[in-house]
Amino acid sequence: MRHIVIVGFESAGLTAASTARMVDRKAKITVIERRPYAISHPCGIPFAIGGEVADIQKLIEPAPRLPNVEVRTATEATAIDTKKQTIEISDLKVGKREELKYDALVLATGSYAFKPPIPGIDLKNVYVVKTVEDGQAIINALSKAKNAIVVGAGTIGIEAAAALQKRGLNVSLVEMLPSILPGMLDPDMADSVAEHLRDKGIHIFRGQSLKEIRGQEQVSSVVMEEQKLPAEIVIVAVGVKPEVRLAKVAGVELGKTGGIKVNEHLRTNAPNVYAAGDCTESFCLITKRPVLSQLATTAIRMGKVAGANAAGGDAVYSGTFNTVVTCAYGLEIASTGVTTYAARQAGFAPVSARVRTLSKPHYYPSAEPIIVKLLVEPREHKLIGGQVLGTEGAAERANLLALAIQKGMTAEELARIEYCYAPPVCDCMEPLVVAAEALLRKLK
Amino acid sequence: MRHIVIVGFESAGLTAASTARMVDRKAKITVIERRPYAISHPCGIPFAIGGEVADIQKLIEPAPRLPNVEVRTATEATAIDTKKQTIEISDLKVGKREELKYDALVLATGSYAFKPPIPGIDLKNVYVVKTVEDGQAIINALSKAKNAIVVGAGTIGIEAAAALQKRGLNVSLVEMLPSILPGMLDPDMADSVAEHLRDKGIHIFRGQSLKEIRGQEQVSSVVMEEQKLPAEIVIVAVGVKPEVRLAKVAGVELGKTGGIKVNEHLRTNAPNVYAAGDCTESFCLITKRPVLSQLATTAIRMGKVAGANAAGGDAVYSGTFNTVVTCAYGLEIASTGVTTYAARQAGFAPVSARVRTLSKPHYYPSAEPIIVKLLVEPREHKLIGGQVLGTEGAAERANLLALAIQKGMTAEELARIEYCYAPPVCDCMEPLVVAAEALLRKLK
Repeated sequence: MRHIVIVGFESAGLTAASTARMVDRKAKITVIERRPYAISHPCGIPFAIGGEVADIQKLIEPAPRLPNVEVRTATEATAIDTKKQTIEISDLKVGKREELKYDALVLATGSYAFKPPIPGIDLKNVYVVKTVEDGQAIINALSKAKNAIVVGAGTIGIEAAAALQKRGLNVSLVEMLPSILPGMLDPDMADSVAEHLRDKGIHIFRGQSLKEIRGQEQVSSVVMEEQKLPAEIVIVAVGVKPEVRLAKVAGVELGKTGGIKVNEHLRTNAPNVYAAGDCTESFCLITKRPVLSQLATTAIRMGKVAGANAAGGDAVYSGTFNTVVTCAYGLEIASTGVTTYAARQAGFAPVSARVRTLSKPHYYPSAEPIIVKLLVEPREHKLIGGQVLGTEGAAERANLLALAIQKGMTAEELARIEYCYAPPVCDCMEPLVVAAEALLRKLK
Repeated sequence: MRHIVIVGFESAGLTAASTARMVDRKAKITVIERRPYAISHPCGIPFAIGGEVADIQKLIEPAPRLPNVEVRTATEATAIDTKKQTIEISDLKVGKREELKYDALVLATGSYAFKPPIPGIDLKNVYVVKTVEDGQAIINALSKAKNAIVVGAGTIGIEAAAALQKRGLNVSLVEMLPSILPGMLDPDMADSVAEHLRDKGIHIFRGQSLKEIRGQEQVSSVVMEEQKLPAEIVIVAVGVKPEVRLAKVAGVELGKTGGIKVNEHLRTNAPNVYAAGDCTESFCLITKRPVLSQLATTAIRMGKVAGANAAGGDAVYSGTFNTVVTCAYGLEIASTGVTTYAARQAGFAPVSARVRTLSKPHYYPSAEPIIVKLLVEPREHKLIGGQVLGTEGAAERANLLALAIQKGMTAEELARIEYCYAPPVCDCMEPLVVAAEALLRKLK
C-alpha cells in the first residue's frame, strides 16, 4: 500500500490529497499541516475585514471527510531524507518528533507575506493579510484606528484598501510603481481603476515607496519619499514569497524565481518528491519563462497534477497564462496573459486596442460600461493578453481570453467567435468581439 | 462606383451596411426598409412589455450616420431581375415605383412570426411578439386583461410570460413538447427553469397544444387537449419563419429548411446576390446539417460576411453552434451546441454530466446556485453541447463553451482550462471545470 505524504493543506495540498484519493483508492494519505486547523480560505480575508463576510472564523473549516486520509494539524515537517524517503515531523502541541516513510511526497508549503526591511516594520499594528489570524488582528484593531496605509497596490492591497475604507477608515494606498495593479493591468486600464477607487474615497500615491514606519510601540505615521502620513494601521501587501525552508533543508532544488523547481509532471529533483502551489515555480506560457504564479487557481491546477502523479498517475501541468480577477466596490477587474510592459520585457512588440462598450443594450436600464483591452503580437496577430473591467462578466471574459490564448487564436479569429445575447444579460455586440475588431483596424 | 443594395435593416442588414461601408469606402449603399423607421430592437420588446424598458418607443431609432449610405424607409422591394441586376422598389407612402441597378445585393429580409392555422387565431387580442407595433398593442391591452395565455415556451414565450406576469396578469404558458425551451435545454435542465417560473406564479402546461381560440370579436378563452382556460390576451410564440417572398419571386433558391440557400460566402444561386440573417439558411457545425438559426447574433455574424463580400471582400461564414441566452426573473438560461435530443437525432450517442455548484464561495453572501450540463460524444470525448443556468455569468460561460466546441476540445481539456477567482466574483472551483470532471468520472 502506497503512502503519500502531503505537506501543507491550503489549495494545492487539499487538491493534491483529494485527487490522489481518486487516482489510487487504496493508498494511505497523510497530510502534515502546521496550522491548528485543517482548512482556511485566505482569499476571503479582505472581505471579512470589509464586513461582507460577517464572521472571519467562517473562513476556517475542519478537514473534508476523505476516506483513509489523515490530516495532522498543528504538526510541522522539519526535515526530509530524500534517499531513505522519510520525513521528520514534529507535533507542535506536545513537541513529539516522529519519522514517516513515504512512497511519494508532495510539497505544498505555500508562501509567506513579504515584509520589506524598513525601519519600524515590526511595530505593533503593522500587518500583512495572509492568515485568518492576521485578518482577526486587523479587525480587532479597527475600532481604535482612524487612518490606514496600505502598502502595495496588487490585488490584496486593493482589496484591503477597499475593506478598510468600508469600515470607515481614512485609507491611503501606496504603490512603488507608477500605476496600480502593475502585474495585471496596463497603466491606461489601471487609471480607470484608480479613478474608481478615488471616487470611493481612497487616496492613492503612485511611484512612491515607504521609507520608514514611525511610532512608539505601535505605528503612528509612515514616511514616504515626499510626505509623512498619520497611520494607526499599516497593511503591507507587497507580495508573497515561496515558503521553501523545508525544501532547502532537504536539498530540493529551487529555480531562479526562488520557487521549487519542477518539471511538467511537477516532479522535483528528488525522487518521488512533487511540489505544487505557491512554493512552486510555474511557467509563463506566453513568455516561456519561469514565473511565480501564486494564485489559488494555479495551486488547485498544480495540486491536481501533483496529487495524481504522487498516486501513480501521469498528469501534466504545462504552465500559466496568469489569469486573475479582483473586485473593488462591485467593479470586476480581470486580466489574462501579459501586460504591455511584460510583453516588451519578453521581447514582444505588442499591438493593443482598448474599447469601452456597455454591459447591456443602451436602452436597457442598468447598462454599465465594460472596458476591454486586447494585446496581440504583430506578426501573426496572435493574442497574448487581455484586460477587462466591468460590473459583471469580466472574470468569465478573461477566462474565455485565456482559452483563446491557449488555442493560439488571432485577433481575426476572436472577431468571429460565436456568442449569445439577451437584453437583460448582455449586448448584441460582445465587448471582446468589438475589441478584436478595433485591434484589426489598427493592424491594417 | 459600386452600388450595393441591402434589403432589410434589422441586425443583418444594418451590420451588412456598416461592414460594406468599411470594406469599400467609395461604394454607394442603398438600404430598402419596409418599416417607416430605420432601426428597431425587437429583442427588447418582451422587456418593454414587462416594464424593465419603460418606454417601448425607445426601441425605435433613426438610422446611424454612415457616409454615403441612403436608408429608404417605408419602401418595399417588390421584384428583382437577377440577370439585369435590378431591383424594383415601391415607396409605401406615395406608391411610386422605381428600379435600381445593383452591383451587389444583400437580402436581409428577416422573418415573420408564425401563427398556426387554428380556429380563432385571427381574433382580436391574439398577438405575436415580433415588431414594436406588436409590443405596443400588447401594452395597450394590458389594462383590460386579467388572464394571458402564452403559446410556445421558447425564449420569446418565456420572456413574454414573465413580462405579462410582472404586469399583474394571471399567466399560463403552453408548450406542445414535453419540456420547455426544447431547442436549448435538456428536460432535466428545463425542469429547473420551469420550477423557477412556477415559483413566480406562472402556470405551465407541457405536452399540450392549443386546439382553438374562442371569443366574440376578441379572445375570451382558449381550448387545449385537456382543458379550457379563460384568456383576454393570447401571445403566440411558436417560432418565426424566414421571410422569403422576395427571394422566391426573384428565383433565388431556397434550402430545405425554407431559408435562402447560401454558400459559405453567403452567396445565393443568383450572381452577386447575398443573403444574411433570419431569412437565410445557416449550418449547424455539430450535426453538419442546414438549420435556421434566427438569432440576432447569427444575423450580425452573417451581416458582416455578406456586407464584406458584397463590397468585394472574401469573408467566410461557416455556421453556428446555436449559442443562446435568455433571462427570466434574474435567472440566466444559456446554451450552446446540441441538446441530448438533437444529438441523438443527428446520430450521436452523447454522454452527459450535470453539476450544481455555487456562483461564489459558500462562505460569501449572495452565493447562488449555478447548474451546468455538458454533453460529449463518447469516442473522442469532444464537447458537443453545454447548458448553463445561473444568476450571473451563464451567458459568458456558454460563449466559452461555444469556443471550446469550435476548437474541438475534449472533456479532458476542459477540465484543465485556466480560470480566475476572487470571492466576490466567482468560486475557486469553476463550474465548467467541475462539470468536465464529473463527465470524466462518467467516461471512465
